[in-house]
Amino acid sequence: MALCHTLAEFTEEPGRITRLFLTPPVRDVHALLRERMEQMGMSVNVDAAGNLRGVWTPVGSTARRLLIGSHIDTVPNAGAFDGVLGVALALECVELARTLQVPFAVEVLAFSEEEGVRFGVPFLGSRAVAGRFDSALLACRDSEGATAESALRAFGLDPAQIPAAAASEEAIGFLEFHIEQGPVLEAENLSVAVVDGIAGQSRLTFEFAGQANHAGTTPMALRRDALTAAAEWIAAVEAHAKDVRGLVATVGAIAVEPNAGNVVPGLARLSLDVRHADDAVRHTAVSGLTAQAKAIAARRSLTVTSAVSLDQPAVALDAHLSALLCRAVEDCGMPGKRMYSGAGHDAMILAARMPAAMLFLRSPGGISHNPAEAVDVEDVAAALPAARAFLQCLAEDNHLQG
Amino acid sequence: MALCHTLAEFTEEPGRITRLFLTPPVRDVHALLRERMEQMGMSVNVDAAGNLRGVWTPVGSTARRLLIGSHIDTVPNAGAFDGVLGVALALECVELARTLQVPFAVEVLAFSEEEGVRFGVPFLGSRAVAGRFDSALLACRDSEGATAESALRAFGLDPAQIPAAAASEEAIGFLEFHIEQGPVLEAENLSVAVVDGIAGQSRLTFEFAGQANHAGTTPMALRRDALTAAAEWIAAVEAHAKDVRGLVATVGAIAVEPNAGNVVPGLARLSLDVRHADDAVRHTAVSGLTAQAKAIAARRSLTVTSAVSLDQPAVALDAHLSALLCRAVEDCGMPGKRMYSGAGHDAMILAARMPAAMLFLRSPGGISHNPAEAVDVEDVAAALPAARAFLQCLAEDNHLQG
Repeated sequence: MALCHTLAEFTEEPGRITRLFLTPPVRDVHALLRERMEQMGMSVNVDAAGNLRGVWTPVGSTARRLLIGSHIDTVPNAGAFDGVLGVALALECVELARTLQVPFAVEVLAFSEEEGVRFGVPFLGSRAVAGRFDSALLACRDSEGATAESALRAFGLDPAQIPAAAASEEAIGFLEFHIEQGPVLEAENLSVAVVDGIAGQSRLTFEFAGQANHAGTTPMALRRDALTAAAEWIAAVEAHAKDVRGLVATVGAIAVEPNAGNVVPGLARLSLDVRHADDAVRHTAVSGLTAQAKAIAARRSLTVTSAVSLDQPAVALDAHLSALLCRAVEDCGMPGKRMYSGAGHDAMILAARMPAAMLFLRSPGGISHNPAEAVDVEDVAAALPAARAFLQCLAEDNHLQG
Repeated sequence: MALCHTLAEFTEEPGRITRLFLTPPVRDVHALLRERMEQMGMSVNVDAAGNLRGVWTPVGSTARRLLIGSHIDTVPNAGAFDGVLGVALALECVELARTLQVPFAVEVLAFSEEEGVRFGVPFLGSRAVAGRFDSALLACRDSEGATAESALRAFGLDPAQIPAAAASEEAIGFLEFHIEQGPVLEAENLSVAVVDGIAGQSRLTFEFAGQANHAGTTPMALRRDALTAAAEWIAAVEAHAKDVRGLVATVGAIAVEPNAGNVVPGLARLSLDVRHADDAVRHTAVSGLTAQAKAIAARRSLTVTSAVSLDQPAVALDAHLSALLCRAVEDCGMPGKRMYSGAGHDAMILAARMPAAMLFLRSPGGISHNPAEAVDVEDVAAALPAARAFLQCLAEDNHLQG
């Protein structure tokens, strides 16, 4: 936690934590982490995607390697723990691995980019390590017009070497510690949970079109109010999501026209975000809610159009590695809570390359992407013995060693 | 209708009809109307509030006087008939009065200001004629910082003389023709309706406050979503208004925060506009809907605050004059349709000074404050014999003559 607070000082904006991909404070983070890693006897390099990577190798070196890490970039005006805590705990794992004398190397990854803020595309760091960095991404531009390619070069990196950043598919696996960024563990009074996978996500926009009219002269029966139609649909979205276990559905953005107190709204535009661990459940929800929008519009003599802007499948994390992690949590006397993540994480990207597992730590108040983001010391103190037990399990695991 | 189209040429914006209080095109309107009036043998003057007033006096003059008129200002990008049609029909009434040799004078009023666009306060013209022009209004400023007082002076008027613009309380009454600006007459396939009064109006703002949260990581049961609460309340507003005869209730404006597709809304601000002929019904609706907002918020662990920004009582127009007008409509073979106006009109202001009556003409599509605003020639052709019959009734009316 002290390391997280120290790294929070490296920011683009004094008084706020803002550290986008390849900005000057990233160099300071790299310098500090490199120093720590070298003091721990690790060999350190920065790969062509800007990821800082340190490898600890046990006495009597081995080809087997466990990857542990998370990201060091942040959203604007962030908290101190999103991503960074996972890097700090990865360093602690190296100390635990050394104490346990585990028979495999540990590589700590500080991913350069996860949030997608600077170039509008997330997971640039983990994509490279997963061998899934599409070179078309190099043409993405930031808000000042600079391409990702030129940003990499300005940081002293060679974009042509990104394919070489891919981790070996022979790795034991990838482990990520991350704050939950949600209220579930707090509500259940738990310190940690094993993440079974990342929910699939649909994003859509809906537009209800009726007729703008004078709010005083248009009787209720003669209205074609786009907002009352939208309101009926928002209620249907909420009701459906409450009915289906594990489903979340959100109307987060709304705009009406002409948006004047004395005019019946003629147009209402809304966003819909739907997430679930099971893609079939999610697709059923999306098509059902789209049908309900049409039925509501038709009954009210309105029209409605919708457009899908994202349809991202769910990603299951590795069943065996997750079971080991869960056993480790239980061995430490905690309930083996398992849950899906509603947000994307680097582990989701790495899962395409190697077995991946993830441990959530309770987020006080469920707050994240906010200066009030926090983590409780007792939850970190609970995660560390679980990590130790996991490393121990792994060291003894026939399946992986075999 | 030809006169309306001619006056529509006098505008601040080429290609759009925009004619605010005391702007240059108002001088052109005055010049054209003055010429018409003088050709009709009327004596014409512009009062200190900028109203153009022409008086026709029958042979063997009389102290009794009927006032007829409407306004000549417009909203930005207006139609050709709102207000102006009432002035054109007032001139037709002078011709009818002459033909009928009615035993009273007819004063045609072209009110300078009704829409409230330039100085943010409506009815400046009719307030002066009703003897209800508060001199504090002279300090109102337009978007360029000019006061109403300086605008009047720049137009060559003396604000100190506004009290002298008040009409005699001994007048027979005031008659206004106006397009309905709503869809009721079209829905009932009628040309005209007698206006019983102007609905009272409440305007309020509501703010639901919950908790902004990540749309992916916050389960439905742990949300305090301000928009779903607002949606439930919007549905309740609509349901209540549909239940109460003659009530209209509108949520016309909405804003949520942070208004992002992947964030559960933490805050929702909404407008509420409620109108009814009976102030008690309106007040009951407002307090009921406020209570429903509180109940919805409480059930969802949110808070809600509300503020009243307008509580304007209903204004009944004159029962006797309206009955005469209705009889005149029926005498012309049309149904004696009577209705309340959901919008304010100059007749509402004049009603405080003298008996006032009003005749609505059908609005095709219910459209107004829009270039598509129209009036059908058959409806004007239906209104004119009704006006003739009304003048005849009035000439023979013992109540008014006595």
